[in-house]
Amino acid sequence: MLNEIGKRAKDAAAKLAVTSTEDKNRILQAMADALRENRKKILEANSEDIENGRKNGMADTLIDRLMLNDERIEGMAQGIEGVISLPDPVGRVLWETERPNGLKIQRVSVPLGVIGIIYEARPNVTSDAAALAVKAGNAAILRGGKEAFCSNACITDIMRSAVQNAGFNPDIIDLVRDTSRESATAMMKMNKYIDVLIPRGSASLINAVVENSTVPVIETGVGNCHIYIDRDADIDMAANIVFNAKTQRISVCNTAESLLIHKDIAELALIAVKARLDEKGVTLYGDEICREICPDIEKATEDDWAREYLDYKMSVKIVSSLDEAMEHIRKYSSGHSESIITENIDAAEKFLSGVDSAAVYHNASTRFTDGGEFGFGAEIGISTQKLHARGPLGLPQLNSFKYKIYGNGQIR
Amino acid sequence: MLNEIGKRAKDAAAKLAVTSTEDKNRILQAMADALRENRKKILEANSEDIENGRKNGMADTLIDRLMLNDERIEGMAQGIEGVISLPDPVGRVLWETERPNGLKIQRVSVPLGVIGIIYEARPNVTSDAAALAVKAGNAAILRGGKEAFCSNACITDIMRSAVQNAGFNPDIIDLVRDTSRESATAMMKMNKYIDVLIPRGSASLINAVVENSTVPVIETGVGNCHIYIDRDADIDMAANIVFNAKTQRISVCNTAESLLIHKDIAELALIAVKARLDEKGVTLYGDEICREICPDIEKATEDDWAREYLDYKMSVKIVSSLDEAMEHIRKYSSGHSESIITENIDAAEKFLSGVDSAAVYHNASTRFTDGGEFGFGAEIGISTQKLHARGPLGLPQLNSFKYKIYGNGQIR
Repeated sequence: MLNEIGKRAKDAAAKLAVTSTEDKNRILQAMADALRENRKKILEANSEDIENGRKNGMADTLIDRLMLNDERIEGMAQGIEGVISLPDPVGRVLWETERPNGLKIQRVSVPLGVIGIIYEARPNVTSDAAALAVKAGNAAILRGGKEAFCSNACITDIMRSAVQNAGFNPDIIDLVRDTSRESATAMMKMNKYIDVLIPRGSASLINAVVENSTVPVIETGVGNCHIYIDRDADIDMAANIVFNAKTQRISVCNTAESLLIHKDIAELALIAVKARLDEKGVTLYGDEICREICPDIEKATEDDWAREYLDYKMSVKIVSSLDEAMEHIRKYSSGHSESIITENIDAAEKFLSGVDSAAVYHNASTRFTDGGEFGFGAEIGISTQKLHARGPLGLPQLNSFKYKIYGNGQIR
Repeated sequence: MLNEIGKRAKDAAAKLAVTSTEDKNRILQAMADALRENRKKILEANSEDIENGRKNGMADTLIDRLMLNDERIEGMAQGIEGVISLPDPVGRVLWETERPNGLKIQRVSVPLGVIGIIYEARPNVTSDAAALAVKAGNAAILRGGKEAFCSNACITDIMRSAVQNAGFNPDIIDLVRDTSRESATAMMKMNKYIDVLIPRGSASLINAVVENSTVPVIETGVGNCHIYIDRDADIDMAANIVFNAKTQRISVCNTAESLLIHKDIAELALIAVKARLDEKGVTLYGDEICREICPDIEKATEDDWAREYLDYKMSVKIVSSLDEAMEHIRKYSSGHSESIITENIDAAEKFLSGVDSAAVYHNASTRFTDGGEFGFGAEIGISTQKLHARGPLGLPQLNSFKYKIYGNGQIR
């Protein structure tokens, strides 16, 4: 069954790869319209999921993530329309040359082919991911979590009908109708039909995909983000940025989880930052020096340095130099986003060059690592690996390239 | 032991990533000089490998690939000097923007980190791969075949001493001193220390790495390359190109393995092509129509369409349309290189757009898919996957990127 979906997606992707921008936008508009028109049907399917969730004792916060309403469905439709307005990434000449033998070589952007997306609770990912994949010329094989199965199936069916009614092959989008662990594992071995797998969700989901997939993976999301307050920091700015990066939205991957402070301003900075974090009841886990300065800071264990709390919690450590801060980040960071707060340009440039993470900031909050904030319009996740794409995955990152070579009989 | 090499490479890579172009070139020159100075030592180690090979009944062609001499060692040194002359790929601003909130965002090329290279017989890969990795700012962990172990170990030791004598950390290059299958498998799981694995060698080696590696892989090399002679082809040009693509060097991945001919010119084209291929004694495996035209063509089986012969053999099939040719290629190609021979520009553009391979040619030999021929100067392999890099892997493909974001206190 899964192979059948794969085969049909591969066939559909070959056609979609050479489909014009206008036609892809027509497909997307048809999808958006259909979601609006079938609002009631989606809400019915969603209420089934909610009911099942309640029956199975799902936590209220998860129920909230799962729940759709008129506004959220309108948001999904508008999300697709947002993708329509983005430039088509396919067919750009990325580089060209003419060789002494007369061969003209062009490197041209092309779709990746078939993108598999393995995700968890939120049903809006079904339409968001499908729209981005299709605009970039790819077929999408979606495999959502069992909690949202009725919603995802309904949304997928509506989108597939819309694509077909618009005169195109519906197999550019499909949902795996089996939410067992086996179906996810099987997708990870479908090298013949899937060109790249993107896992979206918890660290354990992402690790399972990285461990088991023979299909190339774009790893997304885990963020143990650091802020380093340098000796030459503006302390008010530092407190402001830490407060924002830690508390503006605690459940996301670009939230700061760990704070490093230069010893020469440890006392002033820590007291200032803690005063702000106290407003939101953030618990700090610190080393001994921190606890001498503020005795109500909890004692940090080795584990705290590597933790992505996703909570009103933060680790804090005093370092004796910029080098020590960079060394600590190198050891514990997940390679997502890190920021240095300093008025010293040389220190900033050393940090930005030397820290090996997807996004490195000078005097700004880590919360900006986001496709929208970077001006990409939309994203399918944040890559924390170095191969292919790093940071927010916008439309251009959902493309590969190929070489077109024009000759007139050249041989070697 | 392997983890120790990994850890040291990771540490060394962090420093190398921020090393200047001048210093990297000094390292490379020291390596080249040392290979020349230690010619005798290398030849001694190599003769041990040759002796072992002979004792184990190694075929003469393999002995030849393994054997070093003065000229080949000079070639290795010159190879490194060739890399010195290439531009440094690190630190290029690939894209930049200023956001309405004043954040300045730059996408900047950075090294991948630690590159693992698993390869087979030829000892020159040891210096070639190390030089490319280092110029692109990466540490290299090399794991060559057991046949070349003494040569590889000697070359690596010489390069490491040269790096150290030049005042840099020798751990930017190391060789795994264990050629068991287990050491290769262990490398494939070293996600903590290796950022990307590049297998170079046989299809079975590459498949083993793709199947077992949890470290991201750049798949290289297998080439079932097609040439399609269109209805509107110049038959002389077609025969010339097929002859070159099939016979100029039979053992390499960009050699043509399969020929497709439009039915409307099947007889003329097949006879012309076969006359040229007969000069080199190429055996053709064809479908029924081919065998009616030339009865001495062998009967092709289904397996022939997918085979990479790497020999004086070629499969040939008559197709009734450009679409059928493209469909056949889609089904059987390894995604390496394909060429259309035609005077019809529309047919050429349809083929170049619609065929999903790393390099697609109009009126030229597939043999041009090569870093040198593309003007990249040198390559570490030819990628047949779509993620990250496709086609010849030059220095820019041995880089990732990161985002540097400059603010003045921005929060969300």
